[in-house]
Amino acid sequence: MALLGTSKYAQGIGLGGVNPDLASERQTASFSVEGLTTVLDGGAEHTRVRRAVVEVIERDPVFSRENQYFQTQNERYEAAVRKAVHLQKKMHEMGWREDGPEFIYIYRAVAGDVAFLLHRVFMRSISVLGSDEQVAKWIPLATKHQLIGSYAQTELGHGTYLQGLETTAVFDTTTQEFILNTPKISAMKWWPGDMGRSATHTVVFAQLYVHGKCYGVHPFIVQIRSLRDHSLCPGITAGDIGPKMNFEHIDNGYLMLQNVRIPRENMLNKFCEVQPDGTYIRRGSQKINYFTMTTVRVSLLSDEVILPLMKACTIAIRYSAVRRQSKLNPGEEEAKILDYQTQQEKLLPQLAAAYAFHFVNNYLHKLFDTGYKEIQERNFNSLPELHASSSGFKAMLSQYCTAGVEICLRACGGHGYSLLSGLPSLYTKILASCIYEGENTILLLQTARFLVKCFAAASAGQPVPQSVTYLAAVKPGKCPAKNKLDFLNPDIYVEAYQHTAIRLSSSTAAKLQDLIQSGVKKHEAWNQCTVQLVQAAKAHCHYITVKNFVETVEKLENKAGIQKIMKHLCDLFALHGIFSNAGLFLHDGYISGAQMDMITASYLDLLGVIRKDAVPLVDAFDFTDKSLNSALGSYDGNVYQRLYEWAQQSPTNQQISPAYEKYLRPLLHNKLSKL
Amino acid sequence: MALLGTSKYAQGIGLGGVNPDLASERQTASFSVEGLTTVLDGGAEHTRVRRAVVEVIERDPVFSRENQYFQTQNERYEAAVRKAVHLQKKMHEMGWREDGPEFIYIYRAVAGDVAFLLHRVFMRSISVLGSDEQVAKWIPLATKHQLIGSYAQTELGHGTYLQGLETTAVFDTTTQEFILNTPKISAMKWWPGDMGRSATHTVVFAQLYVHGKCYGVHPFIVQIRSLRDHSLCPGITAGDIGPKMNFEHIDNGYLMLQNVRIPRENMLNKFCEVQPDGTYIRRGSQKINYFTMTTVRVSLLSDEVILPLMKACTIAIRYSAVRRQSKLNPGEEEAKILDYQTQQEKLLPQLAAAYAFHFVNNYLHKLFDTGYKEIQERNFNSLPELHASSSGFKAMLSQYCTAGVEICLRACGGHGYSLLSGLPSLYTKILASCIYEGENTILLLQTARFLVKCFAAASAGQPVPQSVTYLAAVKPGKCPAKNKLDFLNPDIYVEAYQHTAIRLSSSTAAKLQDLIQSGVKKHEAWNQCTVQLVQAAKAHCHYITVKNFVETVEKLENKAGIQKIMKHLCDLFALHGIFSNAGLFLHDGYISGAQMDMITASYLDLLGVIRKDAVPLVDAFDFTDKSLNSALGSYDGNVYQRLYEWAQQSPTNQQISPAYEKYLRPLLHNKLSKL
Repeated sequence: MALLGTSKYAQGIGLGGVNPDLASERQTASFSVEGLTTVLDGGAEHTRVRRAVVEVIERDPVFSRENQYFQTQNERYEAAVRKAVHLQKKMHEMGWREDGPEFIYIYRAVAGDVAFLLHRVFMRSISVLGSDEQVAKWIPLATKHQLIGSYAQTELGHGTYLQGLETTAVFDTTTQEFILNTPKISAMKWWPGDMGRSATHTVVFAQLYVHGKCYGVHPFIVQIRSLRDHSLCPGITAGDIGPKMNFEHIDNGYLMLQNVRIPRENMLNKFCEVQPDGTYIRRGSQKINYFTMTTVRVSLLSDEVILPLMKACTIAIRYSAVRRQSKLNPGEEEAKILDYQTQQEKLLPQLAAAYAFHFVNNYLHKLFDTGYKEIQERNFNSLPELHASSSGFKAMLSQYCTAGVEICLRACGGHGYSLLSGLPSLYTKILASCIYEGENTILLLQTARFLVKCFAAASAGQPVPQSVTYLAAVKPGKCPAKNKLDFLNPDIYVEAYQHTAIRLSSSTAAKLQDLIQSGVKKHEAWNQCTVQLVQAAKAHCHYITVKNFVETVEKLENKAGIQKIMKHLCDLFALHGIFSNAGLFLHDGYISGAQMDMITASYLDLLGVIRKDAVPLVDAFDFTDKSLNSALGSYDGNVYQRLYEWAQQSPTNQQISPAYEKYLRPLLHNKLSKL
Repeated sequence: MALLGTSKYAQGIGLGGVNPDLASERQTASFSVEGLTTVLDGGAEHTRVRRAVVEVIERDPVFSRENQYFQTQNERYEAAVRKAVHLQKKMHEMGWREDGPEFIYIYRAVAGDVAFLLHRVFMRSISVLGSDEQVAKWIPLATKHQLIGSYAQTELGHGTYLQGLETTAVFDTTTQEFILNTPKISAMKWWPGDMGRSATHTVVFAQLYVHGKCYGVHPFIVQIRSLRDHSLCPGITAGDIGPKMNFEHIDNGYLMLQNVRIPRENMLNKFCEVQPDGTYIRRGSQKINYFTMTTVRVSLLSDEVILPLMKACTIAIRYSAVRRQSKLNPGEEEAKILDYQTQQEKLLPQLAAAYAFHFVNNYLHKLFDTGYKEIQERNFNSLPELHASSSGFKAMLSQYCTAGVEICLRACGGHGYSLLSGLPSLYTKILASCIYEGENTILLLQTARFLVKCFAAASAGQPVPQSVTYLAAVKPGKCPAKNKLDFLNPDIYVEAYQHTAIRLSSSTAAKLQDLIQSGVKKHEAWNQCTVQLVQAAKAHCHYITVKNFVETVEKLENKAGIQKIMKHLCDLFALHGIFSNAGLFLHDGYISGAQMDMITASYLDLLGVIRKDAVPLVDAFDFTDKSLNSALGSYDGNVYQRLYEWAQQSPTNQQISPAYEKYLRPLLHNKLSKL
């Protein structure tokens, strides 16, 4: 029994060297990790730029996240403002421009804890919805941060249902002003970021009234705080909405308006205008406004949804290769927990999903790039497909990735529950993605509405968008697989997913039709089908994801073993999905019970195959230790030393608690120091 | 448009009256809420005692949780110590004794945020494992809190696998002392509650060595802090492990020992002893030690697992009856979100589960009471069944309830994500129950091992414990149901659950057998079956829960409509389980696809039926507003006012952030106050 002194602990035994259990995992990689990283980045040049940005950000002490897990809400807010202001300076210094190649990596590098994201939304809405004069007035001020903007849409009483917003803006012809009011408590603006403590201005969405007539929701620029001393403007009540599950660095705020008067020019008026005499004019199409919201949903997937799952996989898989617990075989040393089938079954499907989603995200971006070009040429045909895709994939990915991060957290046992593991904050943050930018159930029902329409059109032989042409391919049939190896044939499982997606869309469309024909009112019938409509929308997105993964693997060059390992991951993602949703595939006998046993066997076999490359597969995500900010997930695997060293930095160890003097000392037996 | 002044908001419009949308839900209850409350409590006398305890605790300002969501880890710890010390005084004052009827409700009333729970475990381990002399010395001191105890079992490197603990205790015959050491960093004690900052003593589990021979893990009483000034004793390094996802009121700690000498008398020696010359003696059975751990698992289910789900249901269902969003039918007013099928499908199965688990908890307590009596008469026959039940149900219930609380949180949209809703802290706390007192996967595999053994015995015609006699009833067959109403017959669905539970146990046992016969080593074969073994264990517990719910409903007197509504909940719980695990029931054709459609139809119908009584069904849980501590879940349903008033108390609104002076002021356009 070797004894180890405290001083040695403090020095951090083992830091500097890589834990041998983790090192050995890297010696046997079946593929080139660097090669896979560049595949993920979309080329070596992108990898180079990304690493350069990360290095600059991480070398700068202002962007340090060292104390993040110990900070109060006030401290996190202050740090986020400091970082936001410093980031502008840094970008200027480095010559990084918003249209440059570095820009897309900055947010990833700062790792989220930065203020003024809503300031950007403020600017975007003025750019898109404002007239040339409005853009000329406000954008330069905002660009230089001479004002801080926010975006006040959501109210206490209304989130998803925008038509129900209750804030009012009444036009007063005598003074040429809009008078804004919060007529009841549920009309209070609630949740807007950067508004609780920072913003001087905000875009307020309110019901426009002219001469007593309501024209619906419109955007208005409203100043809420003095530029001179930051005090609230007359008629404004505003503040912070208090603690949340995460996003404590953001000052989500509330706002009440009492007879706040703003000039006529402050209504964003590119698409509609109130003339001096009160005449209301609408110009052009409003469809393009929805497109902005649609693109936001897709643009957040990478940083806010897929990256957190990749990080959680990295932390949990590295830890599982270091953690040894109990014995697989009597007489042997304790086994790495990654060698237990149950641990593999928790983590490896999440890893496969992270890859599947990264690739489907690329697919979505291509879809949107094409759509955007068409729209610029005034062709709006692709809008319904783009809206349905962004809604469905945002919902499916955020739900799947949130569940995946939680699985990773739990798979690390007690240590995963410590904030120092990095996993709790990944979870509490990604969870919000299920709610913001459209609540997931509402979004899936949007996708389902599109599917039901397209199914009807396809059945009637009418043309439908490319992603749903498969709906016309109704074939009852049975899966032709004869043994477990057949289920490693992508044609077999893609066909199974397609079959199930069609079945769910068609059976729900039929139920809806039956209800309506039996006399149930259309809206009520819709409500009675919504549980199944949600299933259909998920099955559609799942099918597209599997199909896209297969196509991506086919296109990969088979250099350095990358195609082979990606094929395994693709198989795992597909078979895990069937195994976990067995009822959907067994329901009409397309897959038989005996075939489900083959699927299960192949699925469990794949776990053992991928386990060998699990650590290199997370290494390929190329996260720095600073970006993981996890005592369990660092590259060197020295988990216990790091937990110990980080814990000592906790404020709970920086003082003797006043609780001792106040409550314990009077009780304790203190005639002796020792019993 | 009525205008509302700020002063009126501040007064809290609507507080005092019940929100009419919520009031109307209560007018149409199909049963007596008070009657159901007493059914849940097990009689009117219990309800009376519970309410009396809650009233006393909640009237005392020391137990207030008003600021809980705003407190730092240091503040929560201090408050928890204060409450713990005050609670002792209160109990004395009120004449509440540990063996009295009030005791079981105290912890529920304080709602968890109290220190020194591990002090109780310290006392329990001395009572159970200590000799009469040890009990006589330590228990009186601990009872009067003249020392604070903890329980140091878990180490950085070992949680579930106790045999692997690395702390050492070497007996030194010359001084008649044990020398305790932490030989490496992974041997550091990590996680014990009350140890980071409070404890003066702890029970340390260490590998006992005498004359160079290891005798395995034994418990030792070790003093770690001075009773005079609370400084660490020589050779002791200890502190707090830092921030966690919750339990911030508990000072989970770390402990290192360097040549710490304790007298021979400090090894707990009721069952084993080291004599002065180093002779090691073991007395009696060690089985009873496991029984203590087993009972802890069952005793925590009510307060730590089922109550949080009940609270989450109460909050989410009340909120869903108040929140109106979008329109079910065009032209109507906005609908309560509880009227949407998708919202019902999220919340009502959780409500049914809360009832199902409350009743199965009663079943477990009866099982344990009977078992305990037998054990007192030296009959240890029931130990395997008790161990398997406590393991399986702790795992199943904690997993199900954690998922349920998360569903409730998400079902409240953005407001559920605010700490003020009460839901985030319910979630982050209950999540720990999946990990502590045995990680769930490990526990389910314990249950599975028992099932596989019993299946073999039952198949061979040997007697098996009562709860698994069903395993002998292998009948292939098909479900006889002909229409959707047949699935409201408990015989039909209980049979389906039983069939599936048997199939999973038998098929996994067969796979295990096949692997071993094909030459795979026994332990490796076991590992290859663990994913399916976990499924089998869950199916067993699910079956018992459904069966017990049916039996409970049968025994209810049909007074005031209670039996009827409980039957609906029981049906919903059962059919939801089949709907959500359809693959397991369809797999061998016991349930056909057409029957699954009937189940789905009945299941969706039940949502509409139970929705009518949803609010009274959560009212029957009888939580006070203080115990819910939720701006969304209060009895009066004035959610928006409460969110607003509570947010104003947040420390983020108590100061102008230094961030303004430091970072914003220098940037902002300050030549004008207004643009």
